[in-house]
Amino acid sequence: MSDHQHDTDPLPETAPGILAEDRAHLFYSWSAQRALRPMPVAGALGSYFWDYEGNRYLDFASQFVHVNIGHQHPKVVAAIQRQAARLCTVSPAFGNDQRARAARLIAERAPGDLDRVLFTNGGTDAVEHAVRMARLVTGRPKVLAAYRSYHGASHLALHLTGDPRRWPVDTGTAGVVHFFGPYLYRTAFHARTEQEEAQRALAHLEQVIALEGPGTVAAVILEPVVGTNGVLVPPPGYLAGVRELCDRHGILLVADEVMAGFGRTGRWFAVQNWDVVPDLITFAKGVNSGYVPLGGVLMGPRVHEAFADRPYPGGLTYSGHPLACAAAVAAITAMTEERIVEHAAWLGTEVLGPGLRELADRHPVVGEVRGLGVFWALELVRDRDTREMLPPLGPPGGPPGPMDELAAACRKRGLWPFLHTNRVHVLPPCTATEQEVRTGLEILDEALSVVDPR
Amino acid sequence: MSDHQHDTDPLPETAPGILAEDRAHLFYSWSAQRALRPMPVAGALGSYFWDYEGNRYLDFASQFVHVNIGHQHPKVVAAIQRQAARLCTVSPAFGNDQRARAARLIAERAPGDLDRVLFTNGGTDAVEHAVRMARLVTGRPKVLAAYRSYHGASHLALHLTGDPRRWPVDTGTAGVVHFFGPYLYRTAFHARTEQEEAQRALAHLEQVIALEGPGTVAAVILEPVVGTNGVLVPPPGYLAGVRELCDRHGILLVADEVMAGFGRTGRWFAVQNWDVVPDLITFAKGVNSGYVPLGGVLMGPRVHEAFADRPYPGGLTYSGHPLACAAAVAAITAMTEERIVEHAAWLGTEVLGPGLRELADRHPVVGEVRGLGVFWALELVRDRDTREMLPPLGPPGGPPGPMDELAAACRKRGLWPFLHTNRVHVLPPCTATEQEVRTGLEILDEALSVVDPR
Ligand SMILES: Cc1ncc(COP(=O)(O)O)c(C=O)c1O
Ligand SMILES: Cc1ncc(COP(=O)(O)O)c(C=O)c1O
Repeated sequence: MSDHQHDTDPLPETAPGILAEDRAHLFYSWSAQRALRPMPVAGALGSYFWDYEGNRYLDFASQFVHVNIGHQHPKVVAAIQRQAARLCTVSPAFGNDQRARAARLIAERAPGDLDRVLFTNGGTDAVEHAVRMARLVTGRPKVLAAYRSYHGASHLALHLTGDPRRWPVDTGTAGVVHFFGPYLYRTAFHARTEQEEAQRALAHLEQVIALEGPGTVAAVILEPVVGTNGVLVPPPGYLAGVRELCDRHGILLVADEVMAGFGRTGRWFAVQNWDVVPDLITFAKGVNSGYVPLGGVLMGPRVHEAFADRPYPGGLTYSGHPLACAAAVAAITAMTEERIVEHAAWLGTEVLGPGLRELADRHPVVGEVRGLGVFWALELVRDRDTREMLPPLGPPGGPPGPMDELAAACRKRGLWPFLHTNRVHVLPPCTATEQEVRTGLEILDEALSVVDPR
Repeated sequence: MSDHQHDTDPLPETAPGILAEDRAHLFYSWSAQRALRPMPVAGALGSYFWDYEGNRYLDFASQFVHVNIGHQHPKVVAAIQRQAARLCTVSPAFGNDQRARAARLIAERAPGDLDRVLFTNGGTDAVEHAVRMARLVTGRPKVLAAYRSYHGASHLALHLTGDPRRWPVDTGTAGVVHFFGPYLYRTAFHARTEQEEAQRALAHLEQVIALEGPGTVAAVILEPVVGTNGVLVPPPGYLAGVRELCDRHGILLVADEVMAGFGRTGRWFAVQNWDVVPDLITFAKGVNSGYVPLGGVLMGPRVHEAFADRPYPGGLTYSGHPLACAAAVAAITAMTEERIVEHAAWLGTEVLGPGLRELADRHPVVGEVRGLGVFWALELVRDRDTREMLPPLGPPGGPPGPMDELAAACRKRGLWPFLHTNRVHVLPPCTATEQEVRTGLEILDEALSVVDPR
């Protein structure tokens, strides 16, 4: 097509107007295209966003679990506008003040000796580069990754992913081996206590390493708190045990903190909840709340010194993008000055934790409550004894199951939930006020009644 | 580290101040880290950028071949600022007016029936998703890619890459097979004319397909004009011949236009120079001149209809990012209204082509001049008869070879060139004025004298 007569049309200001262009020209990720009717978002502020029909939603998904600082934080918006006026883009081969400052602010908050950053555009490419570094530093081919994990959508990152999203592309040739992590509620180890689960999960990983050949394993990659696959908080001792196993065999530990990092768990980095120092941390999302696409790999001397004299084979056009880094500088500075990470921790201990446990007391459909900070999940079951899961969301346009009814009940009341298989993830921005969180809990309370077993 | 006392330090305003943070905390791509002394860029406008010492450079690299619209175009800057105030980010699952409009503007300029866009963050992830789509649509595993190509830096995209950047990571397991494309100056086919080169390159590709098994090949991916590996313009008939071979065997043709697209060749898409319609086009860079990270895959019905009822397995948090798409809407609109693509074509035929050929007449070091639009290369040789290449740029800090001397001679005179192995690529923004281009050519004229064989 080369028909440009409509070029200067004003942007449509109604949902049907937007959807006309959308359905003709956009391809959506993770979706069958035909039945899609995406809801156009008209605007957002703080913990809320709204559509073109005047419906306002409390954002208990933080969009895609990334607006940790809330929507349209004025300091981050202003920083983007200032930097746009100054310098939008430079080649990654040049220096840039925002890029250097963003790296410093991140390194200052990092655990242990992690002090250098390779910036990427998002989480997937952060994982790609972290794995490449681990392979080149160790000279070993294999990477161990957990079942029930998500590490991104490139060929390699999707092979690392331990959930069904991997199945359609799995060629079995990416040098990835999957192991079971701890998940007491649905234990793979027949454990009865957290302590047993931790010990047995470590014994399992130790066996996998032994049988794969310790000298063939470059890295263990894991989400310190597993995100999309269920907000699985590791039992005490587990992460330290993995660190110890890695040390024993010269394996690098990669903590994928794309979802867990930058305040979501009430700490800058999730591993800081357990005082564990990985060799590499991958991050994205919360680093600048996705106001401009940004991700990165944080590494210590063991990694970067391996590339002191030998070129690192990898890079990308937008590495250390000035606009994205300016947003990171502003977001991290605001999060520090406004004590937003501390607030997220407080919301977890004082409001979300107790509030969600109360919901569990009242609603038999809730099988388990898990989480910390602003990172929580309710696991929904047909029966608390058998732990049979509620069936997952149906395809768009199909007959509604209980999870669809739950979603509708939340939305009708102005709450936008994050639903995945049989779970509600509770993921407000780190900046949500106590009152906003309480409002969300009240709506969840009403909505859960719709799906309680009777 | 967790020492935040410096958080509110003002950003450094001198190169040494920036470099102090930079060298302590940044990891650079494609580089050995120790000897790096990146030059901090202080600002940029139009075809120029400048450092902190008051040196101004004419940007004959368009940064990383991405600022097609020039630096700090006021309409794009204003669009970013407006959108930042309105809505920086939404989840890719929601609709968004800028996202839909950007897709429409791209589809309206696309060749043939290519009418839908999956947005990504950059070129690498565009290639990742295009290859996945081709594999899933055809149900076939292999991808054919050219030697002397660059397709990005993820595990898969670097395996597709046909230059030495692949070597450090090549595991031979990505389902990629490399073939030779046309390159008459250093023919792999013992050809003497462009016509012979085209015919023999097609016969070679036909043999590779036959011997790999046509039913195993999902896609042929190629840069319609090979970029980093030499600005290799295909001889007449070659791309049409590849299209025909693909059609004959049910193979999808992926045109990687990350570098060539959006005006660089004097057309919106490079394939439009030869009236060839691929099944998939990958793009990034010029789509919004990298003011905000953005890339994408453009596809026709054969591809998107395969995912009408079956979910596409892939996605990314920042797919269709509102700020990035707003920059694309503004950039494409400005390029259209200001006839920037037509200007780039004119610069190629009237200024750069004749000017570079004159340089070749005067400088025996120039072995060949190739290009179109604002996409040119001079191949530098020790001897025109043997075509022996000038040795490549040395490592930073090492003894300077002729390419280093050429770089220094250009920079001293205020020209920032793009050098790769034994070549100077000549890549001004599409918006460069005739006078700017002539200034650049004069500087190149003086600088080439430094390396002419004597
Ligand atoms: C733990 C984890 N890793 C990697 C990714 C991929 O990040 P992106 O979507 O930015 O590529 C995600 C995205 O949700 C994630 O949660
Ligand atoms: C033809 C081509 N494909 C892909 C890429 C990778 O793009 P990115 O660096 O944005 O990942 C490039 C980058 O230069 C390119 O020139």
